[in-house]
Amino acid sequence: MTPLSPEPRLQVQTSGPLVQTQHVALHSPADPFRLESGATLAPVTVAYETYGSLNAHGDNAILVCHALTGSAHAAGFSSPDPRSEGWWEPMIGPGKPLDTSRYCVICTNFLGGCYGTTGPTSVNPSAGIPFGMTFPEYTVRDMIRLQKSLLDRLGVTRLKTVIGGSLGGMQVLEWPLLYPGTVETIIPIATASRHSAWCIGLNDLSRQAIMLDPEWKLGTYDPGHQPGRGLSIARQIAMVSYRSDVSFQERFGRDRTGETDQEPEHLAMHDPRFQVERYLRYQGKKLVDRFDANTYLYITWAMDGHDVSRGRGTVKEVLGSIRQRALCIGISSDILYPAHEQRAIASALPRGVYREIDAPYGHDSFLIAYDQLGPLVHEFLKERA
Amino acid sequence: MTPLSPEPRLQVQTSGPLVQTQHVALHSPADPFRLESGATLAPVTVAYETYGSLNAHGDNAILVCHALTGSAHAAGFSSPDPRSEGWWEPMIGPGKPLDTSRYCVICTNFLGGCYGTTGPTSVNPSAGIPFGMTFPEYTVRDMIRLQKSLLDRLGVTRLKTVIGGSLGGMQVLEWPLLYPGTVETIIPIATASRHSAWCIGLNDLSRQAIMLDPEWKLGTYDPGHQPGRGLSIARQIAMVSYRSDVSFQERFGRDRTGETDQEPEHLAMHDPRFQVERYLRYQGKKLVDRFDANTYLYITWAMDGHDVSRGRGTVKEVLGSIRQRALCIGISSDILYPAHEQRAIASALPRGVYREIDAPYGHDSFLIAYDQLGPLVHEFLKERA
Repeated sequence: MTPLSPEPRLQVQTSGPLVQTQHVALHSPADPFRLESGATLAPVTVAYETYGSLNAHGDNAILVCHALTGSAHAAGFSSPDPRSEGWWEPMIGPGKPLDTSRYCVICTNFLGGCYGTTGPTSVNPSAGIPFGMTFPEYTVRDMIRLQKSLLDRLGVTRLKTVIGGSLGGMQVLEWPLLYPGTVETIIPIATASRHSAWCIGLNDLSRQAIMLDPEWKLGTYDPGHQPGRGLSIARQIAMVSYRSDVSFQERFGRDRTGETDQEPEHLAMHDPRFQVERYLRYQGKKLVDRFDANTYLYITWAMDGHDVSRGRGTVKEVLGSIRQRALCIGISSDILYPAHEQRAIASALPRGVYREIDAPYGHDSFLIAYDQLGPLVHEFLKERA
Repeated sequence: MTPLSPEPRLQVQTSGPLVQTQHVALHSPADPFRLESGATLAPVTVAYETYGSLNAHGDNAILVCHALTGSAHAAGFSSPDPRSEGWWEPMIGPGKPLDTSRYCVICTNFLGGCYGTTGPTSVNPSAGIPFGMTFPEYTVRDMIRLQKSLLDRLGVTRLKTVIGGSLGGMQVLEWPLLYPGTVETIIPIATASRHSAWCIGLNDLSRQAIMLDPEWKLGTYDPGHQPGRGLSIARQIAMVSYRSDVSFQERFGRDRTGETDQEPEHLAMHDPRFQVERYLRYQGKKLVDRFDANTYLYITWAMDGHDVSRGRGTVKEVLGSIRQRALCIGISSDILYPAHEQRAIASALPRGVYREIDAPYGHDSFLIAYDQLGPLVHEFLKERA
């Protein structure tokens, strides 16, 4: 299997302490990227990072898929900002579960993101201003097809595994369905074969909060004047669902923001009274400083549209058609993509095995409980096909 | 034990198919109702309903405590609107678990509500306009003390039980602590001894959504122009937490609002795409039509402040001091007030027993799974002390 692209291979970065996000423009007006909706984009810039070296056959690659607000910066420390650690740093590196002394690990900012890949914040070449809400709607499958274009350009012929949690896991499940010949194994973590009603409901609440912010202005806000309060609430709704009552209780309990635990004090309408409120608002603000509100709307729509069975048959048939070995990882305390959903995915995959992270941190455990996640992934990759 | 109030007993309504909410003004400027904060209110109107007859000793009463958006209209059909069924109708009536042929069941709209009891929507007598955000902040303990004033006026000397779920259950736990001599047994359902960090976080998200709505205007909106979008989002956040992923999945799955399940279609920014979104927005709108946004803020603050241990010692000591028989009911699928929290309450109560409703509906099961709740309550009330 050789890359179909006539373009020269791009440089693959050798892992080191400092990494730099690469950008490549794919597709031209003569050969545009065509979305499922029929809309086209040309060119499409893809932001990506690589860790470790691709071998001559291009068959030692691993693709890491990020979640809702993630980026291509999965590992190492960013060269523009050395304090910026990759979002899955404990998982990726020499001797780590995704071992860069053996594999070339690749992470891309997916289509429609706001971390360097073309998306709503990109300038629409035909208008000279950012797309905003005129960006075409995209699907998880569109994300995969753009990732495949990049892998072709990089000279990747085979993926040892595709791995990711949450929305990353949705991409993982689409990969063997769209490109069965490219994928050797898959590791979907805390994810969904079709986005559930409960998750759709939560996403819609987030969207309503963004759209309620008067600064949203139907998506036409200036980049410097985001609908920050709405996006912050959206993030906080997500944060609550990413964690668990137990983890919040252990971390914050009923600790107050003030000096006293006497109650009630003078009513301070907007002020947080409890540490958990301060924490959530801080998390909201952090996201506002680094993420784009329109992009949040688009990505959550893509998540809600995610359904491996769409146009393909029943979920059972579709998952049953995946021939790859699969490690399906659930999290005991996940209320968003519950363990029972992961067990169901594993059961439906002919070569699926189920393993559970037993941790109190909720959905976010795949970004926290590395002591359990790491060995599971390491063991799985060691096994022979 | 006789009522201390010098006022005459009020009429207690005999249960019948039609019920009418009663209103009584308690406290006068000379004897105002004093809140924990030190603020005073006079007079305070209390809205209440009674079902069944109070006996001559006034010792066959049961107090039902409602939850966040409930009212005094717990049973029967409202006489102004015969379609308006009480919120716990299957639980209250002749031969029902709260048997009105034996007991006089009483439900009051709690202090600071918006269903007839003095609260933020009431006219501030000293200003001639609604209190709005100038209403004094109140606590669950204040609610209990006002309920006690009403019971004294009604001539109730003893409560066979105090029962309620969610915020209702918080009131239930405060009752034997404030008035140990009045309460014979308690039935706290799906509640908290102290509001958890996770619940506080969710409540704060609801408040932020209300305050984000430009129509909120720091709480000075006209009654006819509520911050409806914000209050709707607040309600939807709550609705999602009141249910469970399983119940949403069974009810809505991925059913779409449109004619087709093809995806993606033309982007309709504000329109719900999935039935679950339509349902949640409908629930939001329903609440906006019947509830007040400022009141929602105040009640959620009262919930967040709820902590039986405040000023009394440790939770263990305080619950350990409750001598009443207690039936603590948890719900297997409740993510808001999880079953483990109810088990902990039951363990800490010297005469507490734990029973669990095994139902997939989440927290709201105490308003749904009557086939399990009813027999538990019935059996408990039959037992001799």
